Amino acid sequence: MATPPSADRIEQVAFGFMASKVLFSAIEFGLFTELAKGALSAEEIQHRIGLHPRSARDFPDALVALGMLERNGTLYSNTRDTDFYLDRGKPTYIGNFFQLWNARVYGFAGSLGEGLKTGKPQNEIKSGDEDWVDAMYRTPERLRLFLRCMTGHSLPSAIAIAQKFPWAKYQTFADIGTAEGCFPAQVAVAHPHLRGEGFDLSAVRPFFEEYVSSFRVQDRVRFRAGDFFKDALPSADVLVMGMILHDWSLDVKQALMKKAYEALPDGGALIVYEHLIDDDRRKNLAGLLMSLIMLLETQEGFDYTGADCCAWMRKAGFKEIRVEQLTGIESMVVGIK
Amino acid sequence: MATPPSADRIEQVAFGFMASKVLFSAIEFGLFTELAKGALSAEEIQHRIGLHPRSARDFPDALVALGMLERNGTLYSNTRDTDFYLDRGKPTYIGNFFQLWNARVYGFAGSLGEGLKTGKPQNEIKSGDEDWVDAMYRTPERLRLFLRCMTGHSLPSAIAIAQKFPWAKYQTFADIGTAEGCFPAQVAVAHPHLRGEGFDLSAVRPFFEEYVSSFRVQDRVRFRAGDFFKDALPSADVLVMGMILHDWSLDVKQALMKKAYEALPDGGALIVYEHLIDDDRRKNLAGLLMSLIMLLETQEGFDYTGADCCAWMRKAGFKEIRVEQLTGIESMVVGIK
Repeated sequence: MATPPSADRIEQVAFGFMASKVLFSAIEFGLFTELAKGALSAEEIQHRIGLHPRSARDFPDALVALGMLERNGTLYSNTRDTDFYLDRGKPTYIGNFFQLWNARVYGFAGSLGEGLKTGKPQNEIKSGDEDWVDAMYRTPERLRLFLRCMTGHSLPSAIAIAQKFPWAKYQTFADIGTAEGCFPAQVAVAHPHLRGEGFDLSAVRPFFEEYVSSFRVQDRVRFRAGDFFKDALPSADVLVMGMILHDWSLDVKQALMKKAYEALPDGGALIVYEHLIDDDRRKNLAGLLMSLIMLLETQEGFDYTGADCCAWMRKAGFKEIRVEQLTGIESMVVGIK
Repeated sequence: MATPPSADRIEQVAFGFMASKVLFSAIEFGLFTELAKGALSAEEIQHRIGLHPRSARDFPDALVALGMLERNGTLYSNTRDTDFYLDRGKPTYIGNFFQLWNARVYGFAGSLGEGLKTGKPQNEIKSGDEDWVDAMYRTPERLRLFLRCMTGHSLPSAIAIAQKFPWAKYQTFADIGTAEGCFPAQVAVAHPHLRGEGFDLSAVRPFFEEYVSSFRVQDRVRFRAGDFFKDALPSADVLVMGMILHDWSLDVKQALMKKAYEALPDGGALIVYEHLIDDDRRKNLAGLLMSLIMLLETQEGFDYTGADCCAWMRKAGFKEIRVEQLTGIESMVVGIK
């Protein structure tokens, strides 16, 4: 008999929701934060984070199988990656972002099918609640949490861009839609000659200033209050739009790029970074799934390829446009005025 | 500067729920069934299954990136695997099983955190509804759907066991908790010398007989009504327990194996198949996640390693016990009386 087809890959994809929930639960329980203090046995983990005996082995072992923990003998420890990104005690913690997915997006994705058929968001908007971003701005506690989530969203690319962009050629930069200032902080720490601004709504200022000060770069990184729809963008040698453009329609994307072009001096650069979809739209799953999250979360947003972004930048007037991969799944597009 | 750690793997795991939902939606929409009739463009897919223009490219391209579809030029088609397992028109369709996950387990997994901490099921039991399996048996329509789901659960292993087990040495078999008779049908079709029985609750009989007849093996494969808790198991050269033992506590697992030992003739074989966890509990993610699904769905169930199962079989009296991989993620344990 011939070898029958395999259902393994189908099953692996089908199990994906359980994999996400195991990771999200570990973040919620602070497991990576506990393990950053030292390796623990299954029994110690069970008591430290309050697991029921039924899950005391399956839960950490599933995290090992997912590549989120290591196990040597009977002791579990963080991987290099989870220790760096998922320990709440480190300034490189990005777990808040996934807690937002756990608390909101996982549930909304339950009606992905309806979203695919109707094209309508499946988040709070659907039930007539106010826009969730507006809701986030309503109390300082919520706003702080939301801005921290955005730091988790931006940090891997911010670290990479701090390393990979030719910052030596420039003196000033401004980050558009900066939130807590994740991007300015990373770049300013890595390049002492730079001065930068974080541009966002005025309510964001105290959180930005607190965050940036924690990196001791507050003398070179300032907050500028403004609305990128209503106001002109700040002028700087380099303007940055990270995980911003995918929230909006093509018209808004193009209008924002045009605004950036107008604000830049000759020779200035625009950096756009996202989970860019590969040009052939078949490899970067994260970009395609992020675009479907934009379907769930926004009225008209979508993610796009590097080639798409290059074409829009060209239309806005930019030249010497290039795409550069930042991580395995995130990339930047750079255009020069 | 040293290369910073990568958040890619963390993000990939975090995106898993979206990957699952994209697959589940494609199954729900009958996309693989449409593509089994011939390749289609994105526009044709959009109209055939009723997608909104916003998702008309991201949805099929995400399926390409997931390895669930192929794309040649502008035409999308099934992979060999999805054509075999996810086309409703084929007797090898297993999509019902994932529709059960989509309709039930995805939502229950939303409270995995609570399950991990309390050890209590997170399904219908939690809200005081009747046990969902009991509910499934209450109407013929629901029972049919449930039994079809179980066929989807068993089919990949059933196909593999039909090929890999030394059936030439045996004349008769009985499948314990047979549901529609997926396992007996696959084995009887592949081995015309065998006669088999499917053992399950009496309400299952009409669905079993309809299913087995569709494979034209009804003269060699009969239904036997019974309850594996209350009744003796049927006697046959080979007894099979597939995706059954993981539903129950260790005591029940051992009691069922003992019952199988008692029902077998000398030289008879017990086959247990599951998403067995690897002995080192670090590779077969599917087995570990399936065990956490048992946490969500049952009072005391759990998945286990091949070594665990060998030890329990030995305790029940079996000898010549061996573990054999069936698919990348499913395995069988065989013991001889």
